Amino acid sequence: MLDFTYYAPTKVHFGKDKHKEVGNIVSSYGFKTVMIQYGKSSIKNSGLYDEIVASLKEHNIKIIDMGGVEPNPKISFVRKAIEVARSENVDLILAVGGGSVLDSSKYTASGALYDGDVWDFPQRKAAPQKAIPVGAVLTISAAGSEMSSSAVISNEELNMKRGYNSDFNRCLFAICNPELTFSVDKYQTACGIVDIMAHTMERYFTVCPDTLLTDRICEGLLKSVVEAGSVAMDNPNDYDARATLMWASSLSHNDLTGCGRENALCVHQLEHALSGEFDFIAHGAGLAVLFPAWARYVYKANPGRFAQFARNVWDVTEDDDEVAALHGIEKMEEYFSSIDMPLRLRDFNIDSSSTARLAELCTFGKQRTVKSYIELDYDKIKDVFDLCY
Amino acid sequence: MLDFTYYAPTKVHFGKDKHKEVGNIVSSYGFKTVMIQYGKSSIKNSGLYDEIVASLKEHNIKIIDMGGVEPNPKISFVRKAIEVARSENVDLILAVGGGSVLDSSKYTASGALYDGDVWDFPQRKAAPQKAIPVGAVLTISAAGSEMSSSAVISNEELNMKRGYNSDFNRCLFAICNPELTFSVDKYQTACGIVDIMAHTMERYFTVCPDTLLTDRICEGLLKSVVEAGSVAMDNPNDYDARATLMWASSLSHNDLTGCGRENALCVHQLEHALSGEFDFIAHGAGLAVLFPAWARYVYKANPGRFAQFARNVWDVTEDDDEVAALHGIEKMEEYFSSIDMPLRLRDFNIDSSSTARLAELCTFGKQRTVKSYIELDYDKIKDVFDLCY
Repeated sequence: MLDFTYYAPTKVHFGKDKHKEVGNIVSSYGFKTVMIQYGKSSIKNSGLYDEIVASLKEHNIKIIDMGGVEPNPKISFVRKAIEVARSENVDLILAVGGGSVLDSSKYTASGALYDGDVWDFPQRKAAPQKAIPVGAVLTISAAGSEMSSSAVISNEELNMKRGYNSDFNRCLFAICNPELTFSVDKYQTACGIVDIMAHTMERYFTVCPDTLLTDRICEGLLKSVVEAGSVAMDNPNDYDARATLMWASSLSHNDLTGCGRENALCVHQLEHALSGEFDFIAHGAGLAVLFPAWARYVYKANPGRFAQFARNVWDVTEDDDEVAALHGIEKMEEYFSSIDMPLRLRDFNIDSSSTARLAELCTFGKQRTVKSYIELDYDKIKDVFDLCY
Repeated sequence: MLDFTYYAPTKVHFGKDKHKEVGNIVSSYGFKTVMIQYGKSSIKNSGLYDEIVASLKEHNIKIIDMGGVEPNPKISFVRKAIEVARSENVDLILAVGGGSVLDSSKYTASGALYDGDVWDFPQRKAAPQKAIPVGAVLTISAAGSEMSSSAVISNEELNMKRGYNSDFNRCLFAICNPELTFSVDKYQTACGIVDIMAHTMERYFTVCPDTLLTDRICEGLLKSVVEAGSVAMDNPNDYDARATLMWASSLSHNDLTGCGRENALCVHQLEHALSGEFDFIAHGAGLAVLFPAWARYVYKANPGRFAQFARNVWDVTEDDDEVAALHGIEKMEEYFSSIDMPLRLRDFNIDSSSTARLAELCTFGKQRTVKSYIELDYDKIKDVFDLCY
């Protein structure tokens, strides 16, 4: 087991109608001026926006409206939001939405208290030293960003999607009402399921030995998500299934599933290249295509670990590790298929020649390798992309 | 699934030699005057005390020595420590030890900033509104107090052992080096194993339905502790086994194992009466005696849950729920026996007539009932004590 630091300070308010307590929660910290970030008009149409505003106004909190965050959120929007946050003396950023809105809010929060340009953070030119606190009202179970230290942003001028980790990216609080996810459509629900599973599997598939407890937690989380995911796909209004997915999304990415191991999130690096280049590809769908291909490419480095995954998550019974490992990968792929996820890159109608460009992007122009199970350089990354074309 | 709030803000520094970083960690928060609470001379004999002092002094931190915390810590000690903390303007209390030292430190921390008497907190006459921060250097894996909101104290004048929960009881940071537990003897190691399991099982055995993910996490944690516990008993210097127990102790009691369910810790209430009355009984040993008896007394209220426990933790294969449930309880008892825990109250050489007195104490003189699986009044509690005599 490797040494680790575990720090997940986000206070999670989980349950029915919890979003109606937002005014009470925000004022308990003494905040006065709140910037609400959100995406399109869906939270206005559903009435959620009005409920949140009403609860905040009851506590005399000033609201700065900052709607319009796009999926794969853009740095240009963040720069605008930073200006507003500064000029309005915003003391809390409330992200109402999912991973994209949280990413945008986190960049705004640390960027607003930084003298330079916020793109410096993902470029590793600077690390945030402070940030405006961020609170979340979650509307989709997927990214786990409400408890995570990570934030990803797209720079549309440079055609790059980049992330960085910082404890300043951890939300102060998260309001998680599973009912708010009843209206998430089947496709986005499935993308979320894959994202939650991927956050867990990325941390599970390392070559660090002796992580008994973390292994059992990962396997239990994956089994729960597989079971609840199928239920939620069939019955979008099943509260307990939606609740399981929502809580799993937070736990999958708050580092609990990685304690004592490396946390490289290698397949995510490949996927960021994919959805960075092709903006129309949903992150979860990209992961569903990439994960089985990556698994088949790397499993031989330690078939025992994939065999354990197969036996403890998918109830595979074969004794031979290699047979079991491959069977487990098949089961994962079949599950993704059962929730209507694409399985091949060509399903996105992109050209087969794109794989070279994707490998180029993923390696920052052959400047880096990525590593979880085995180290992947440009050629190997291109192999993985080719394998899943 | 019930609504819940999850808040586990403690920053955990986990791994080899981590205690040597204590000065760096403490000074990163800006603390200047640290009260060190600890038990007997063992941390002085082992050299741990000197290492901690050296690290703190390197960072020019003033040290207030407050050794002498007893097992089942006493309110008289806490009252003395509160006086010292006030007069010395202590800004951090560093608990070096296990559950008892943490309990004492937590009471000191909230008591020092409270105008009344600290016994008001467990009496529910007042709740802390602030507290001096508490940091922990853990030397035994058992109580999970380093991440929990609970603190228990004995009032020797009133012959009472009482606890209360508060977010002010949550440690600011915890330094967890599994190597510091190599020297914990077999008996205390076993008591710790039982305590970790009990914290998890208390939360697992409720009648709240639909807690899929929390169930899987509990089962995974229990399986890990059972496996690592046996290894640590055979080989006290096995780092990975000790590390698994240490991390499990924190997770078992930081509320992760109870999300979405009631958290009554019923058997703990019985045990507090037992070790409150008989100071020589170790908490974990008391739990080892009480848990199987309690389980046999209550399982019929919902055999399915005990059957699930039997199948998913102990690999019991019987189809019939009642048969499986009883088999699972047997397996638990056999495991406690395998790590040399007492199984009967008479093993403590106490009189069989004590059970009435214990039931009296547990119910605060027939003033309350306790409830997890089923509600237990004075008569039923006496039944459980009788059952395990």
